Amino acid sequence: MSETKRVAVLLADGFEEGEAVVFIDIMRRLDIEVDVLSCMETTALNTYFKTKITADYTLIEKFDETYDAVMMPGGPQGTDNLTANTSVIAFLKRHIDANKYICALCSSGAKVLAAHHLLQGRPYTTGDKLADKFDDGDFRIQKVVVADNFITGRGLGVSFEFAFTVAKYLLSDNQEKVDWQANHIYFDH
Amino acid sequence: MSETKRVAVLLADGFEEGEAVVFIDIMRRLDIEVDVLSCMETTALNTYFKTKITADYTLIEKFDETYDAVMMPGGPQGTDNLTANTSVIAFLKRHIDANKYICALCSSGAKVLAAHHLLQGRPYTTGDKLADKFDDGDFRIQKVVVADNFITGRGLGVSFEFAFTVAKYLLSDNQEKVDWQANHIYFDH
Repeated sequence: MSETKRVAVLLADGFEEGEAVVFIDIMRRLDIEVDVLSCMETTALNTYFKTKITADYTLIEKFDETYDAVMMPGGPQGTDNLTANTSVIAFLKRHIDANKYICALCSSGAKVLAAHHLLQGRPYTTGDKLADKFDDGDFRIQKVVVADNFITGRGLGVSFEFAFTVAKYLLSDNQEKVDWQANHIYFDH
Repeated sequence: MSETKRVAVLLADGFEEGEAVVFIDIMRRLDIEVDVLSCMETTALNTYFKTKITADYTLIEKFDETYDAVMMPGGPQGTDNLTANTSVIAFLKRHIDANKYICALCSSGAKVLAAHHLLQGRPYTTGDKLADKFDDGDFRIQKVVVADNFITGRGLGVSFEFAFTVAKYLLSDNQEKVDWQANHIYFDH
């Protein structure tokens, strides 16, 4: 049996709760360990649509750990807060250098990855019109785009496709498990 | 402009967080008011996959209010807790008698509605094999089933279809708004 995979989910005030929670849920259903990390001062978080959600730890507490994947959801203020946070950018850069998966849903693809030139011209997707604002990245109109270790998704409505794509890369030696879970939850795939 | 619609989401320890959060998120995106109600002693809740989520109020605080719809997610222990709670059943019966929408995702259709003979033989859907345990209800293998005021969904993977179906009934005078939002989040519908 292969080693348990570990994923960090980076949340900041204003994050899109459906995008975050579907991802966390699918990962944990597949026995992938998830640390939900607040990129604010405390684990208490404000969300885009006011669902009351708290992180497991702050990013600072787990800053020196290295995960197999780092995931960011969208939400306009959430991605404003992520992109302005130098610890978030340093954490992402270290994971990019270590060849880990960088998984960005919705506006985080443009507003965090492209804004900081982290895509280095790679194909990616994000919400409409956001890509126009940044030089970096080769924007594609697709539900999910995989380019090297970067996995990006369009938005909330592709949350399941995005999560299962990440899972298929993390569990590349056990696609049956991923397919079984998608069938188990009645997700058309 | 029509009156703002109001929805109660009933949560108990062990609820399926993706099913609950996608539903709450889609409702609030459509300006439908949502009260997230804990059916436990306090608003603090345990979830199926350990995402830290807190309710807005306890059911007891809002017990006498009448909502346009009542929603329940699945999660094995969550629906065990809902079905054993006499306040939950009384709250549902009052809303059924008042002709409000009763929206049950995943195991809650079988384990709460059918178990308490609330379906009165109506067509419904729920997770595999759960329907066999109960006499009430006419089980269908469909993503979402609508029968009178009862809207039921198969499981987590149909969360978006389920939420948008409920929204279309609640906002029957404004289908354009519902369709716009589904397109906006890139949900294929």
